[in-house]
Amino acid sequence: MLESTVPKKNSSKDAYKKQLKILQNKLVELQQKVCQMNIPVIITFEGFSASGKGSLIGKLVYPLDPRTFTVYTMAKVYEDAQLRPFLCGFWTKTPAKGRIAIFDKSWYSIGQSGGLYNLSSREKANFYYDVNAFEKNLLDDGNLIIKFFLHISKEEQRERFKQLERNEETRWRVNEGDWEQNRNYEKKLKEYQQMIRKTDSNCEWTQINAKDKRSATITMYKTIIEKIEVEIKNRQSPAVPSPTELRSYKPTGFLKKINPNCEISSEKYEKELEYYQEKARKLCYKLYEKRRPVILVYEGWDAAGKGGNIKRLTERLDPRGYEVIPVAAPSKEELSHHYLWRFYNKFPKDGHIAIFDRSWYGRVMVERIEGFCTTGEWQRAYSEINDCESHLFHHGVIILKFWLQIDQDEQLKRFNARMENPLKQHKINDEDWRNREKWEQYEEAVEEMLTMTNTKIAPWVIVESNNKKYARIKVLKHVVETLENQLQ
Amino acid sequence: MLESTVPKKNSSKDAYKKQLKILQNKLVELQQKVCQMNIPVIITFEGFSASGKGSLIGKLVYPLDPRTFTVYTMAKVYEDAQLRPFLCGFWTKTPAKGRIAIFDKSWYSIGQSGGLYNLSSREKANFYYDVNAFEKNLLDDGNLIIKFFLHISKEEQRERFKQLERNEETRWRVNEGDWEQNRNYEKKLKEYQQMIRKTDSNCEWTQINAKDKRSATITMYKTIIEKIEVEIKNRQSPAVPSPTELRSYKPTGFLKKINPNCEISSEKYEKELEYYQEKARKLCYKLYEKRRPVILVYEGWDAAGKGGNIKRLTERLDPRGYEVIPVAAPSKEELSHHYLWRFYNKFPKDGHIAIFDRSWYGRVMVERIEGFCTTGEWQRAYSEINDCESHLFHHGVIILKFWLQIDQDEQLKRFNARMENPLKQHKINDEDWRNREKWEQYEEAVEEMLTMTNTKIAPWVIVESNNKKYARIKVLKHVVETLENQLQ
Repeated sequence: MLESTVPKKNSSKDAYKKQLKILQNKLVELQQKVCQMNIPVIITFEGFSASGKGSLIGKLVYPLDPRTFTVYTMAKVYEDAQLRPFLCGFWTKTPAKGRIAIFDKSWYSIGQSGGLYNLSSREKANFYYDVNAFEKNLLDDGNLIIKFFLHISKEEQRERFKQLERNEETRWRVNEGDWEQNRNYEKKLKEYQQMIRKTDSNCEWTQINAKDKRSATITMYKTIIEKIEVEIKNRQSPAVPSPTELRSYKPTGFLKKINPNCEISSEKYEKELEYYQEKARKLCYKLYEKRRPVILVYEGWDAAGKGGNIKRLTERLDPRGYEVIPVAAPSKEELSHHYLWRFYNKFPKDGHIAIFDRSWYGRVMVERIEGFCTTGEWQRAYSEINDCESHLFHHGVIILKFWLQIDQDEQLKRFNARMENPLKQHKINDEDWRNREKWEQYEEAVEEMLTMTNTKIAPWVIVESNNKKYARIKVLKHVVETLENQLQ
Repeated sequence: MLESTVPKKNSSKDAYKKQLKILQNKLVELQQKVCQMNIPVIITFEGFSASGKGSLIGKLVYPLDPRTFTVYTMAKVYEDAQLRPFLCGFWTKTPAKGRIAIFDKSWYSIGQSGGLYNLSSREKANFYYDVNAFEKNLLDDGNLIIKFFLHISKEEQRERFKQLERNEETRWRVNEGDWEQNRNYEKKLKEYQQMIRKTDSNCEWTQINAKDKRSATITMYKTIIEKIEVEIKNRQSPAVPSPTELRSYKPTGFLKKINPNCEISSEKYEKELEYYQEKARKLCYKLYEKRRPVILVYEGWDAAGKGGNIKRLTERLDPRGYEVIPVAAPSKEELSHHYLWRFYNKFPKDGHIAIFDRSWYGRVMVERIEGFCTTGEWQRAYSEINDCESHLFHHGVIILKFWLQIDQDEQLKRFNARMENPLKQHKINDEDWRNREKWEQYEEAVEEMLTMTNTKIAPWVIVESNNKKYARIKVLKHVVETLENQLQ
């Protein structure tokens, strides 16, 4: 539905200015509240060429404190998104709590024809799935998202193009693509309507008739004010537990039943190590040639041997082709965003490998057990993570996740060995011992995690790791076979 | 001087392997020390095409823990450096304390012909100045920098190109530029020799004869081991005060003598505000058209009116063309780098404006007064900052710095007003009152700062700010006039 135009056509300029001033003052007041209440706000502008997105954004920010918002154009997004899943460029620009991010064209402009790629119907379905999941994730995390779509008619657009072209200073703003849009206006309109329909349920669109600039401006201000007011009101009323918080996973104890004692002879180890390392080395060049990105996730008990395992995997790889990303506790800045935010900056470029030494799965393990997030938050995280990995998969990322499994006795042996070796003492601290005491709790969390996020596109591989050599070969072999399979 | 080749030509493969193993073990041991002692290490590889940089880097990282180093190729650097001063891409990749950054080609490859631009002799001089300052800054901050240059003869290069071309899998690695380098080998050699001469004094080069790969590998390991050992030894001996720590600036009291009471009538204010805002708006489009970047720095006493001043400056600008960057206390990650590190990520792209609400000048004010850095560190900062701004200037950045001056009475009035206004109470806290008590100390620091960093290319403008309206017009007018001047 198009919003009705607000001021009467014959209202005087002064009346308009007066109304504007009132709305602007209100917005400034709300902006301060948004800041104090730590609400992250996202405002996006989509619409036909020459519908006036730029000047509307100018109007929007005019009364705002320039230290509290950032405006992003597509050029800025592309810079960070080159050769990566397209949402990376947007995820990394989602606002910190209390800040406002304004997008002059958004993720929708990438999915539309004339955007990054012409999409097949499969790709289109993936696109809508990913975009809806993206917005849902942000909404669940407390973001306020306001989406505008600016309409002008075919005739109005033609008139505006002509006017821009008549003026020497603005001529450059009209290009062949714009005229093509005008010629195919009806087709484009249908596309836009489909887009709006498919992405209106989580997070509704506000459509603005942009023919009259004053009325468009008033509608924009009123919409933003109303949405912020609703958001503030919602936060002040007591929270109702979400349905997900009522769900409970029944542990089956399957992890306990896995025997982590698998053996390999030293001879066989040396032979297979060389064999698979050499294969992996060659496959990485092929990966680069075919521009396929790879993500490997290492999770496991403390002292399960992640470091040494990663070392053997990468030892002979071209160091320009991979990066190992150690994941520690989040920084203050990272904490003021959605927990997935910090990982979107680290996902690999096409043709490269990113190896995560611990990862986003911290959300459903340490953050869950230690109470760093709410029950609702970690329960929601399973589907958030699945959506995230599914977006990576849609872009062509090969994802493999390894759980390094040892038993409690083995861990104790390794902890003690670390305590006794002066070169390794730095690898063990009080926290490790405290975590060890919570073995049962962690076991339950790990089981649930492995179950809930074991997808076809990003499967978990349980690696029996009491014997480090066996574990290294198992991972190497698995990586080699998967890459061979995928690169055929 | 070329390092003498180490193992005798007739040494057996086994002897080489044995020696290699010893060196690798030593390196691993030292890497752990580097980590424990928080030493940031930079290792760069330059040299002729096909001299074997890539395979040498492979050898280097082979024994290392992959979680402690990152390898950067030029492609990764360019990604972050597009349309920015060329050192931005490298500054942002300098390692955190205890980590190792390895560069496959470095800042030297940008300055060389065939790099980003063909340099005039003036540009060349700027380039060497900037690179030497960059390395000096990092050395002073405790970075260990190891620079390798790999030599091969003209004949050897030709042979290697041919060999690469014979093999179908490696053919793509030789391009026309490579053959051109070979044809102009003598000229290129001269250029490289000049480069090495001009950048050898702060931070010496290790030149390696790369004909024999084994000997090159051994030399590389030995050099790195030796340099790390020296660095560790130096850190263990007591520090001698550097000459800069003995220098002392004599305050002249000029700041106290400035009368911050300058008046403007409300009528004149309204008129000039609109006039200069409109001019600024237009100039920003011209800036974009001419691809000139601008940096504006706001510093001043607490409650001097920075926020409101920035607001009036940006109010009518196209929000896609500028960004306001509020600078707060550094994060833990930022603290583990050179203090300028965090700013290199924020410098504007060509054609854009970055407005810093507080800045790198915190080093010589709050960090100095509160003892967050050593005397040597803040004293050194003046020339570091001048070098940084000079690098920006060499790239074409227009830099303006504003000091907003109010007197103690005015500050008290504003603090009290903030305390009384519920909407503004969040703008004042205990720290502000504490800082106020240190007015004299700050005054001395500010004076010294304004004196030591008031350069022709990045001048300070003192803005009398007891009257906010006067201050706003003064800044706006200054920005407009400077841009008009620069964009002629």
